[in-house]
Amino acid sequence: MSTSILESEIHAQPDVISELLHKETENVNKIADDLRGRFKYVVIAARGTSDNAARYAQYLFGAHNRLQVALATPSLFTLYECPPDLSEALVIGISQSGQSPDIVSVLSEAHRQGRPTLAITNLQQSPLAEAADHVIMLHAGLEKAVAATKTYTSSLAGLALLSCCLENNAQRMKDLERVPQAMQRAFLDLEPAASHVERYRYMAHCNVIGRGYNYSTAFEVALKVKELTRVVAEPYSSADFRHGPVATVSRGFPVIVVAPQGAITQDMIDLIAQLKGLGAELLVISDDPQHLSIANLPLPIPPGLPEWLTPLVAVIPGQLFAMQLAIEKGFNADQPEGLTKVTETF
Amino acid sequence: MSTSILESEIHAQPDVISELLHKETENVNKIADDLRGRFKYVVIAARGTSDNAARYAQYLFGAHNRLQVALATPSLFTLYECPPDLSEALVIGISQSGQSPDIVSVLSEAHRQGRPTLAITNLQQSPLAEAADHVIMLHAGLEKAVAATKTYTSSLAGLALLSCCLENNAQRMKDLERVPQAMQRAFLDLEPAASHVERYRYMAHCNVIGRGYNYSTAFEVALKVKELTRVVAEPYSSADFRHGPVATVSRGFPVIVVAPQGAITQDMIDLIAQLKGLGAELLVISDDPQHLSIANLPLPIPPGLPEWLTPLVAVIPGQLFAMQLAIEKGFNADQPEGLTKVTETF
Repeated sequence: MSTSILESEIHAQPDVISELLHKETENVNKIADDLRGRFKYVVIAARGTSDNAARYAQYLFGAHNRLQVALATPSLFTLYECPPDLSEALVIGISQSGQSPDIVSVLSEAHRQGRPTLAITNLQQSPLAEAADHVIMLHAGLEKAVAATKTYTSSLAGLALLSCCLENNAQRMKDLERVPQAMQRAFLDLEPAASHVERYRYMAHCNVIGRGYNYSTAFEVALKVKELTRVVAEPYSSADFRHGPVATVSRGFPVIVVAPQGAITQDMIDLIAQLKGLGAELLVISDDPQHLSIANLPLPIPPGLPEWLTPLVAVIPGQLFAMQLAIEKGFNADQPEGLTKVTETF
Repeated sequence: MSTSILESEIHAQPDVISELLHKETENVNKIADDLRGRFKYVVIAARGTSDNAARYAQYLFGAHNRLQVALATPSLFTLYECPPDLSEALVIGISQSGQSPDIVSVLSEAHRQGRPTLAITNLQQSPLAEAADHVIMLHAGLEKAVAATKTYTSSLAGLALLSCCLENNAQRMKDLERVPQAMQRAFLDLEPAASHVERYRYMAHCNVIGRGYNYSTAFEVALKVKELTRVVAEPYSSADFRHGPVATVSRGFPVIVVAPQGAITQDMIDLIAQLKGLGAELLVISDDPQHLSIANLPLPIPPGLPEWLTPLVAVIPGQLFAMQLAIEKGFNADQPEGLTKVTETF
């Protein structure tokens, strides 16, 4: 039942982000200079937690770099042996271990087609890094807990850094540098919530809803809940949720809403009202006191970050919630049954 | 508790597909001639059931037309007002009603950027059809049940027809014409399963797993189960499933595996063995007698279709299962509580 490893890795995130920004900014500036103008859109190959980082990139690169992002379908490259023509694409692989053969396959094929490739990984000596023209290192140190936490937020930071460098935007770089401090503040503000997590001891399933930049956060929080607590947690965008899955919500149904302030605020206000009307149990991750005041369990993050950076902080309450719920359920949060740290899929 | 409308719409699918192929082939050939060579990749905007059709297109266009497909993130076009640069893209919108403002926004912006656009819809007089250069009509007739069935398979057929026409492949066209008959055969073969659905009367959640072409089927079956029965049903690819969510599966946990024969066969054999080892309750949709023999509830589809066409038939057992489970639970399958036929999201 020890959670010391996972807990220390969650709390290491501010230092990891600082380290990444310190050690990678020069490298990523060079990568951006090399890549600029050589592609019209982006393809990202990733699995699990890294795929959730890729979801963040869809909004980040879309809104700030005007780039359309496609998530790769690796089985076309492996099982079907029919890879698409990647003309005009920059191809990025994200994997903390850099080992999953299907992700490596996508980069190798892109290289074969003469496309520029980039690996975002925690391991320099990995097949993924070796297959890529450029590498952004995560500098997360060895991640020992099976559930990824610090490699997730450092993947987001690596993508955010690339976005800033491609845009050559000094103000956004400065904002990015504020993230570690905001994370530290979040740890403090979240302390009171821990003692209320036992309320969810017998929760069997839940939904997690976010939109835009924090669509990624909804997916990653749901994945942590599944991995650590075995609770069936399904992520949605608020729009997709309204196109059907809302039917599953009845009185007492638990919904985690990821709602930092930003362009999505009105949409989230409407959603919270709708869920309230259905009698849902609301857990709200937000920097907006009004959103938080409606929640059965408020999970505050500090205000003041621009929306595009909130995913780096908004995932923390979800990580801590999942860890605490694992403790309440008597599970080993460092080594969930049936999972391994490196998953190789084809 | 009447299900007459939904049931008749499910059974109308073979005729709808025949009608679509009969009435649209000439049109789609012309569309293909106009589009060929004018784009390097495809962006598809869709929500709900139509988004699942878009997932099919990722594998269909990838494997047969060597096209990379990106699923659009509509909020970039609406809430964020920062649409990406769509250079080199063909932009497709899929919506049976053609009404959802966010999907229309993506096509309008693509048009503004001078990109070719295509609508796949059941309503000629809709904002989506009006915003597009080209239209493929679904010919599904009015769909009255809230849960989409015949507009889903006709969307798949419209995409399949486009893929064949772009490739100018007569053999694939002939295979596509065999689909209505295979659907009819599936209805007959599935009759014995209906009486066993009561076994799942108290199922609270389940997973639905598919891969490759039938990744779409997993998503669509999960959506039907959610809409019609309020059961939390989460879809996965077998690869993503192994990267974490497998942790939620314990003895008796129900998993619907979508496993028609094809390039994914070995992967599905491994998955079924893994799930069996965990003591999962297995519902298997397949044309492979060996896969079916292992299942707690076998859901057979007829053998003989090439893998790329199996999604049009493999969804039928899922539609019928969800409808029957709604009946067992005493729900109105034609009009699930809390849902409307046309959902407008921004």
